[in-house]
Amino acid sequence: MPRPISARIHLSALRHNYAVAREHASPAKVWAVVKANAYGHGLEHALTALEDADGLALVEVDGALRLRELGWTKPLFLLEGFFHTADLPLIQQHRIDVAVHCSEQITLLEQASLSSEPIQVHLKVNGGMNRLGFRPEQVAAAYTRLSALVQVRVVNLMMHFANADDEFNSRLPVAEQCRQFELAQASLGDVTLGVSLSNSAVNLLHTSIHDGWARAGIMLYGGSPSKASADSFDLRPAMTLQSELIAVQEIKAGESIGYGSRFVADKPMRIGVVACGYADGYPRHAVDGTPLLINGVRAPLVGRVSMDMITVDITDINDARVGALVTLWGQGLPIDEVAHFCGTIGYELMCAVAPRVRLIVGE
Amino acid sequence: MPRPISARIHLSALRHNYAVAREHASPAKVWAVVKANAYGHGLEHALTALEDADGLALVEVDGALRLRELGWTKPLFLLEGFFHTADLPLIQQHRIDVAVHCSEQITLLEQASLSSEPIQVHLKVNGGMNRLGFRPEQVAAAYTRLSALVQVRVVNLMMHFANADDEFNSRLPVAEQCRQFELAQASLGDVTLGVSLSNSAVNLLHTSIHDGWARAGIMLYGGSPSKASADSFDLRPAMTLQSELIAVQEIKAGESIGYGSRFVADKPMRIGVVACGYADGYPRHAVDGTPLLINGVRAPLVGRVSMDMITVDITDINDARVGALVTLWGQGLPIDEVAHFCGTIGYELMCAVAPRVRLIVGE
Repeated sequence: MPRPISARIHLSALRHNYAVAREHASPAKVWAVVKANAYGHGLEHALTALEDADGLALVEVDGALRLRELGWTKPLFLLEGFFHTADLPLIQQHRIDVAVHCSEQITLLEQASLSSEPIQVHLKVNGGMNRLGFRPEQVAAAYTRLSALVQVRVVNLMMHFANADDEFNSRLPVAEQCRQFELAQASLGDVTLGVSLSNSAVNLLHTSIHDGWARAGIMLYGGSPSKASADSFDLRPAMTLQSELIAVQEIKAGESIGYGSRFVADKPMRIGVVACGYADGYPRHAVDGTPLLINGVRAPLVGRVSMDMITVDITDINDARVGALVTLWGQGLPIDEVAHFCGTIGYELMCAVAPRVRLIVGE
Repeated sequence: MPRPISARIHLSALRHNYAVAREHASPAKVWAVVKANAYGHGLEHALTALEDADGLALVEVDGALRLRELGWTKPLFLLEGFFHTADLPLIQQHRIDVAVHCSEQITLLEQASLSSEPIQVHLKVNGGMNRLGFRPEQVAAAYTRLSALVQVRVVNLMMHFANADDEFNSRLPVAEQCRQFELAQASLGDVTLGVSLSNSAVNLLHTSIHDGWARAGIMLYGGSPSKASADSFDLRPAMTLQSELIAVQEIKAGESIGYGSRFVADKPMRIGVVACGYADGYPRHAVDGTPLLINGVRAPLVGRVSMDMITVDITDINDARVGALVTLWGQGLPIDEVAHFCGTIGYELMCAVAPRVRLIVGE
């Protein structure tokens, strides 16, 4: 049998969270973002839960083809477009929409010999995030090159926000990115394209921004895109990472635990050892005090995270014996709270769940 | 085609590093530790490289069975033993050695109905790390229970060091753990068991400690177990994580990059966007200045790591265009150095390489 650790995937939570995204985005349609193996939840499980979605979006060409194999016939969208000329015939054949974010991609499209069925292109605007996309003053030229190609149909103008989660960011506020986007739109004159702007943070926090296609990522999985709790947005955890105690140690005052002897007991303690370590995806940055649930009761992590084990103070939990159920995050323990103790965000934690952790489908 | 990111696995480095471990451990035999999918390098690739190893050790029962399926007939060792009664018949059938670290495991052995071919047990001593194992004063009783079972043969006494990498740790120095181990040995009176003490740090740094079976983990993969460089121990990187630039942005002084606008340019800059993010296993904790190689030339990370992308200052690298080769760590860029910029250790980085990153075997 495998080690006791597993991740339960809650299909009903995925469905519920998608419905929340759609309600906020209405009347826009909503791409369900399933990149990175559906943020660690399993592409096939996500497909099962999200069969009513308007469209699925990801960054992996092979993942997109897999979704077609699995029977997904509705819109499918590659958020970073294609990486190789060899991808283009498959993208065309399987009717996959692509982002075009740089002139090199346009050159590849110009050089490709494709049949006449056009590929739907979403032209990406760099509104100041300076990651992917054309600056507003470059957009018209990019559009002109693309619209000259019979094998391409430009359908949307899209942008991504750098700071939609942080209303106090003054370096690149949402309003400034909106202004940049309007400059890009204006540069196209009479041409009117669809608009795709919203990520989860915009969807939940910036209700004045409307577009035709929103992109729901982290919120689908029950993580919060901002400092506010997922619960406050009515989002439900789509994954519960759980394991078991595999050992219990009774230690004396003055004794230490684990690598580096980081934690030193100031009194006699009972320590539980959990079958979960950083090689399962649990972050090594977790500090003493990071919460876990032992048989449903909160208990603090003590000592450094090992590759295959973590240690937890179970002094006050009488029924915590070898075999006791341990929840690392999920139902009863928000992933965002755990991430906060590890100096990161829930997105990273859910994506990092390792292949050796079984995914178990539940409702 | 997949995204441009891949991890090259250097089989010759694995072989070389194993030889280094064996030289240090001589005349002891050396377990090659291949848990966590061979620290992210792929269990099958590790098996290919390490066919001459004395034995393979891991924590996953299913992984051990897979190694037998793949034809491994030499010693095989479960470092945490078994987790379920159902594992025992398979462990016996496939001649897999197990650690026994707690009394609950002994109870499972006592209750199991097994054929007479004995399972080889390595009795684990808790020498003060307070993670797994019996305290010295508990060892004799555990041994007595185990040696009463016809289906068990106790072959070794083993221990793990908490601070073998840090000679200045005064909470639990190596010498104190050795003293605890000697207490455990003495408690067995005339019974003489084999000894297994050394991990990579002991193997390389504590040459006065001798045992019958050393355990080589991180050093096999070319990571350093201490603050000294891997190179100083003649270890070679067994993995090179590489990707490509997928976009280039020319930015102006005062402009910012990525989420949170963490990095602000103080002059005009060229920024490369790399197809690698935290969902590939690259740590989101990476600070500005974390080194990468662009076409073999060092360049600093700038801006926050995204899920699928990182951004790098390529202002001074004239030939860095879309498609340029990017090395995240490995040959030419020690993983330990990258880990240092991320506040962690190379072990975590190599284990975190995500399934969407192709492993490509090379020499």
